[in-house]
Amino acid sequence: MSNDVVALPTGASARLGELYNAAALASDPGWIDAEKITLACRILAADGHDTIVPGLISVRTAQPESFLTLPMGLGFDEVTPSQILTVDKDLNVLQGDGKPPKAVGFLIKMHQLRPDIRCGIHTHAPHTAALSMIGEPLAVAHMDATMFHDDCAYLTEWPGNPVTELEGELISRALGTKRSILLSNHGLATVGTSIEEAAWMALCFERAAKMQIRARSLGSLTLLEPEFARDAHNYMTDPSMVTTQFRRFARRVLRQDPGCLASQVN
Amino acid sequence: MSNDVVALPTGASARLGELYNAAALASDPGWIDAEKITLACRILAADGHDTIVPGLISVRTAQPESFLTLPMGLGFDEVTPSQILTVDKDLNVLQGDGKPPKAVGFLIKMHQLRPDIRCGIHTHAPHTAALSMIGEPLAVAHMDATMFHDDCAYLTEWPGNPVTELEGELISRALGTKRSILLSNHGLATVGTSIEEAAWMALCFERAAKMQIRARSLGSLTLLEPEFARDAHNYMTDPSMVTTQFRRFARRVLRQDPGCLASQVN
Amino acid sequence: MSNDVVALPTGASARLGELYNAAALASDPGWIDAEKITLACRILAADGHDTIVPGLISVRTAQPESFLTLPMGLGFDEVTPSQILTVDKDLNVLQGDGKPPKAVGFLIKMHQLRPDIRCGIHTHAPHTAALSMIGEPLAVAHMDATMFHDDCAYLTEWPGNPVTELEGELISRALGTKRSILLSNHGLATVGTSIEEAAWMALCFERAAKMQIRARSLGSLTLLEPEFARDAHNYMTDPSMVTTQFRRFARRVLRQDPGCLASQVN
Amino acid sequence: MSNDVVALPTGASARLGELYNAAALASDPGWIDAEKITLACRILAADGHDTIVPGLISVRTAQPESFLTLPMGLGFDEVTPSQILTVDKDLNVLQGDGKPPKAVGFLIKMHQLRPDIRCGIHTHAPHTAALSMIGEPLAVAHMDATMFHDDCAYLTEWPGNPVTELEGELISRALGTKRSILLSNHGLATVGTSIEEAAWMALCFERAAKMQIRARSLGSLTLLEPEFARDAHNYMTDPSMVTTQFRRFARRVLRQDPGCLASQVN
Repeated sequence: MSNDVVALPTGASARLGELYNAAALASDPGWIDAEKITLACRILAADGHDTIVPGLISVRTAQPESFLTLPMGLGFDEVTPSQILTVDKDLNVLQGDGKPPKAVGFLIKMHQLRPDIRCGIHTHAPHTAALSMIGEPLAVAHMDATMFHDDCAYLTEWPGNPVTELEGELISRALGTKRSILLSNHGLATVGTSIEEAAWMALCFERAAKMQIRARSLGSLTLLEPEFARDAHNYMTDPSMVTTQFRRFARRVLRQDPGCLASQVN
Repeated sequence: MSNDVVALPTGASARLGELYNAAALASDPGWIDAEKITLACRILAADGHDTIVPGLISVRTAQPESFLTLPMGLGFDEVTPSQILTVDKDLNVLQGDGKPPKAVGFLIKMHQLRPDIRCGIHTHAPHTAALSMIGEPLAVAHMDATMFHDDCAYLTEWPGNPVTELEGELISRALGTKRSILLSNHGLATVGTSIEEAAWMALCFERAAKMQIRARSLGSLTLLEPEFARDAHNYMTDPSMVTTQFRRFARRVLRQDPGCLASQVN
Repeated sequence: MSNDVVALPTGASARLGELYNAAALASDPGWIDAEKITLACRILAADGHDTIVPGLISVRTAQPESFLTLPMGLGFDEVTPSQILTVDKDLNVLQGDGKPPKAVGFLIKMHQLRPDIRCGIHTHAPHTAALSMIGEPLAVAHMDATMFHDDCAYLTEWPGNPVTELEGELISRALGTKRSILLSNHGLATVGTSIEEAAWMALCFERAAKMQIRARSLGSLTLLEPEFARDAHNYMTDPSMVTTQFRRFARRVLRQDPGCLASQVN
Repeated sequence: MSNDVVALPTGASARLGELYNAAALASDPGWIDAEKITLACRILAADGHDTIVPGLISVRTAQPESFLTLPMGLGFDEVTPSQILTVDKDLNVLQGDGKPPKAVGFLIKMHQLRPDIRCGIHTHAPHTAALSMIGEPLAVAHMDATMFHDDCAYLTEWPGNPVTELEGELISRALGTKRSILLSNHGLATVGTSIEEAAWMALCFERAAKMQIRARSLGSLTLLEPEFARDAHNYMTDPSMVTTQFRRFARRVLRQDPGCLASQVN
């Protein structure tokens, strides 16, 4: 195990070991939302989602109009549970130190317009960004892109710098009932009924864009048959698939930085 | 040695040191199948073979209709010998905790149709995936791709989501007597008379696809003369070549994670 | 925190911990210029700016015609504060061991011609270099490239090997009052009223070039509306944005090598 | 310093510290040939030169017809001084354990035909390999490629699998008096009057190929004026440049693996 190479904070080693108990592969590690946010952000950071400005994430809490998000200036690669803020719909801080970036307002707006979603994510992931610069929608030409079959919208014009609520409305309107959207000259947004689902869609989005750029630099794509793509879409967005793979990528994060869920920065 | 930088589990340091005894470069490290599977998976993981879902591997055991494989949800980068399952041809677990993914059924089917093979591997390696999206077969335009001369089949249509036995038959029929196959809109499958051989073919496949994508983004390939390619193919698939290079890549895995063959996760 | 995995020099752990105090995300870590140079160089090194020869950096001091720079032969990835030289405008060493490369003379010349700038940076960052080989200017087709809207000049001919003062005049003339310039068959130069600003422009330059190369390998860019680009430019070059993101990338450097600001190489 | 994070073998820390003494940047670290070979191989490994088979290196010793080289099966990334073999011109082992790969015979042949060279290197570096697949010579369209101005030959046909002496003659004839050659469907070979020079040319070759592939995927190259390129060539191949940069890349290797020059594998 790569966790042998590091000095673990007390308790972290035991917890990481438990994740590799064979039975545990299929059982719930019991992470709370702040821990899932930490893992989701670091999973995406490891895939290059953070660019010159960090990505955004928002999670609806059990309290009405109360959301979890990150303080301004914190990269996805350095999130820890203790840094996560609780804010209201106007971005007033209810709990935690620091203040959220104004730009996260567009995700909060989406929560209001889409009561079905618990989590929203927005990044400028670099291959997605490259696609967004040439007006080419995400295509479904590979099994690993089928989660976007009829589930990826496209905002064809960049509305200028983040304008919070207006941007939230524009993107929400373009998004409709889908789980993801390509934003022209900009990046991606994904939503989910769970943190795992929004993170999974963002992870798969950038990877699909990366495959597409490599493939398209050589020629034209062979798209999947819609019927097959639909079946595979359902398989790829099934909650058990989403949860299983989220945990796999989360373990990768935990092997790299076993102390990242520790409540105290030491 | 990079192994100086890590805290080794007891005994691991000595074993790694032995691999660098000059005489040992040419002698058998004595790995059992579960250790070879661990190393093969991690060699491929280091080359990016794991994508949004992990790859698949199957190894025929000495017992009839009994196979080694991985539990569902385990990434190639985190395999250890103790997690490997023994299953029968219907994927019932004979030994080990956890259950195999249904999709590995297509590899088991291939074992039944090709009694000559001991190991099958399937991944969605990313450059292979990109080739598979545009209907371009793997080409032999470089010495390092000659192992695929007349040894790489091509399944030109994606049969939809893994359908276990049927998929096994479709792929086996397309594979014929070859050692590798490019699967449209999907990935690769390789087979071998040993774990090392199947892993070697998978490793070389993705690397050949990567070279091809870079080269083809500039222009047309200059293919090798078939006669020269045939000679080089035999050189590149000779068991001593396969074994020598597998051990080299295995040592790289062991330098990164010297404890990965330990029987206990500590 | 990844800083758990390393043995920190005395005091370094505490200092790194302080950076993650939530309040500290928005407050000044109090780095002196030699520390900022170290961090700037290592931020750029992590993004591949160092090529077969190291990049160049110059910082005006409070003393007239006195500048901080690096000794010849030192890579951006290995800078420490104690290695930084103080030189006069003729590159005579006023303080420190070693001697500066002659090529830095072109940055010193730029300081003389542009009294508004405190810091100049020059690198052959690889994607910038690729753009520079085909005569394609940096384009503004993504929000993350808006800091270059009307703020990136282009020297269309390579004047041959660095010729210090003449090169400084050529580049300064082409640069005009802008913050950045693409140098044909060569690389980039950026300037700023602070070390953070010059580093930020260099970091964003190479990343914008990388996005552009990926996008352009597929087709034509959709450029931003100038009006929107101008607004976003101002947002992206605002000192608070520059400082916030510089600190984020600096923390990443410090997590990788927590001792890099130590005054003694131990 | 990143060397803070590792447990150094006795003495290694002190030696690495010495390399960062400012005066030491310009002075000779006193490496013997076996140490320079180790560093050269690891510098190239870090740049991806090792592919499915390791690269080859040969160094003429002070004894007539006696050469240093690597044992078969050893990757560039794992070389240590104690593993280096001394062989005669027929590849008989004069000193050390293990045996050399037959393929290194072509480098030995080149030593015989070019008495001016002390070191030869051959790799299948991946971007070089990609260029070699489409019949496109290395171009001089960037300052960092000027060392190849009138100093890079091109073997336009692949003579089939390595045939030792014949291959040595073919390549030597194509090489002429130059320092480097692109081998069709194959890779690169470089030679130098020192280990540092051959390694420098190999390092720069692959990097130039990488820049060229990125640039050419967008359009046509703007070549340098021959007169400027010639001047820059001389600057870039000057022994002081070669030595300074070799040491810089060597320090990077030593920071990653401070014990790699230790005479004993522990």
